[in-house]
Amino acid sequence: MMHKNDLDTPCLLLERSLFDRNVRLMLERAAIAGKALRPHAKTHKCSQIAREQLEAGNCVGICAAKVSEAYALAEAGIENILITSPVTTPAKIEQLLACAARTRECLVVVDNLDNACQLNEAAARLPAPLPILLDLDPEMGRTGIAFSEAPEFAHRLHAMPNLSLRGIQCYAGHLQHLRNTDERHRESRRLMQKAAQVFRQLQGEGLPMQIFTGTGTGTASSDLEIPELTDIQVGSYCVMDAEYAAVENPEHLLFEQFCPALTLVTTVISNNHDSHVTVDAGLKALYFTPETPPRVVRQGLPLPGWRYEWFCDEHGKLFFPGEKPALGERIELCLPHCDPTINLHDEIHVIDHGKLVGRWKIDLRGKVY
Amino acid sequence: MMHKNDLDTPCLLLERSLFDRNVRLMLERAAIAGKALRPHAKTHKCSQIAREQLEAGNCVGICAAKVSEAYALAEAGIENILITSPVTTPAKIEQLLACAARTRECLVVVDNLDNACQLNEAAARLPAPLPILLDLDPEMGRTGIAFSEAPEFAHRLHAMPNLSLRGIQCYAGHLQHLRNTDERHRESRRLMQKAAQVFRQLQGEGLPMQIFTGTGTGTASSDLEIPELTDIQVGSYCVMDAEYAAVENPEHLLFEQFCPALTLVTTVISNNHDSHVTVDAGLKALYFTPETPPRVVRQGLPLPGWRYEWFCDEHGKLFFPGEKPALGERIELCLPHCDPTINLHDEIHVIDHGKLVGRWKIDLRGKVY
Repeated sequence: MMHKNDLDTPCLLLERSLFDRNVRLMLERAAIAGKALRPHAKTHKCSQIAREQLEAGNCVGICAAKVSEAYALAEAGIENILITSPVTTPAKIEQLLACAARTRECLVVVDNLDNACQLNEAAARLPAPLPILLDLDPEMGRTGIAFSEAPEFAHRLHAMPNLSLRGIQCYAGHLQHLRNTDERHRESRRLMQKAAQVFRQLQGEGLPMQIFTGTGTGTASSDLEIPELTDIQVGSYCVMDAEYAAVENPEHLLFEQFCPALTLVTTVISNNHDSHVTVDAGLKALYFTPETPPRVVRQGLPLPGWRYEWFCDEHGKLFFPGEKPALGERIELCLPHCDPTINLHDEIHVIDHGKLVGRWKIDLRGKVY
Repeated sequence: MMHKNDLDTPCLLLERSLFDRNVRLMLERAAIAGKALRPHAKTHKCSQIAREQLEAGNCVGICAAKVSEAYALAEAGIENILITSPVTTPAKIEQLLACAARTRECLVVVDNLDNACQLNEAAARLPAPLPILLDLDPEMGRTGIAFSEAPEFAHRLHAMPNLSLRGIQCYAGHLQHLRNTDERHRESRRLMQKAAQVFRQLQGEGLPMQIFTGTGTGTASSDLEIPELTDIQVGSYCVMDAEYAAVENPEHLLFEQFCPALTLVTTVISNNHDSHVTVDAGLKALYFTPETPPRVVRQGLPLPGWRYEWFCDEHGKLFFPGEKPALGERIELCLPHCDPTINLHDEIHVIDHGKLVGRWKIDLRGKVY
């Protein structure tokens, strides 16, 4: 079996035991609160990881951000999919129907009456009504309808013969990385309680409210206390990154108890200077912002005094505290933000005790539609 | 034939006539100066564009930033390739040999004696010596050897039996986007003249100096005046972007006479607010920095008052000056920085008079090794 050090760089390594631990941790937390998981595939863009998440248990399905992601998941055999953004164009709606035909259940969120009419018309071609969720806007203005307008909108959706309203979605994406922990949880609780109130009201009015889905890794621990919430759309928890660690425990690269299972290995390709060396991972191998750069790690912990800076699209500039790294030396980086970094690669290398035990294709990469 | 408005979004559109114009413009400029082109494929990651560039004429080859890009180009039938970064690990060197076996000529740059020894040893397996260029550091510290150390290094390279020294590379990547035009050209001239001096000295000392390659789109017009320079490694000129336009003529989105031939089309997927709408292109469909955001364009010109902001990995936030765009409305964006944006997509849609006339696979995407 190949050793991880024989893999060409830059490459993504997934430490199998840490990944399993992260997956188990979140599903146990949810189970204790009486909730299920609906893990978000936008993070990993990998149907094999989606399968692993489903097989670990306590999952009601998998989330996709785009209909093209959902279709790729359906093709890979995933049977319960929720598309967490509105599907609004003729081409996308066609793909949604194709996706519905290939899965046991393909849910989609709706935040607009015209869009609901489009979907209702298209869904006439399906053998059964298209299951939908009403998308609530957690006061961030990205997608969703205002809390105050939701009840009337829900009744309109419910009246459409080819749509089957199943519940609500409320995802506060803007809160997930808030560094003030109190504020993050307080604000999320406030918004999720407003969503819960809508959920109860609609239940009271006789609408079929089976699903109340939402939450990300950053607010899961407080959102799990909301009684009405049925499942959580967590994504980053399984691989983790420096951005989440920066929120809570940058020193040990931990967020709550989740740890970085995925790292990027890069190699020194030029070292003619005493101040820094050049490595083979630039903007095309990792997502970079100066605010949350990748962290140089060894055995899962940050190496003090090391610093990665952007050098160009193809290369990084690495500052080191002691002896200069040799040409060809391999450097391990904790990802800055996992989603857009994974999205740059073709595969994830699964590592167990230093050995390569799997290559998981990032098969949803490029599914931007 | 499909109309461009029927393509699902987000998608890249290449306006055929503008692309042809950009390609012709650069090759004519180089020809007037008595130089050739060696277009850089890192920009477009597309072997079909490389072929178009070669077929347009006045090209001595194609550049690749990574050996895996070079290999993909070789597989696509490109016969003269220069790898513009050092190739330093056993796995990469293996791929370099495979690449050399598949092409008429595969040049690689060298900036380190240990690396040269590695290459010399590996190249013993090739039927002919491996052609190399000495990589000069234009005082930016990314790759390359200092001007002062170059002569001695060149003689060492020349003495290696399995390497065939052909010339030098000097690429001042840090100058290409300098907004001060005078400084950009003055500084580039200063550095390229230093490189030219090394080139002349080595020629005088009897070393086989046939190639002096360098330059990017930002400094080509002044570098073309350097007599010793043989060919230019321009990349962005063929598709162009907002970052280059910001350097010179942001109002008309022009850099010198090059214009944006490549745009990204995105669609409004949520419009429940008066202040902004949400579009389906986020960080996974375009490279974004707040300093040079993508520009909203129509017929190649920026629309005044429109502004794109990042919303999340999957979505953008679009501010508009007048009437709110409808759900499903298509918005065209001039790319912020072409290289890392193209790298997120699977194909380029070639458009002529509004019709789709080609789909060019971005087949070097994911070639980060």
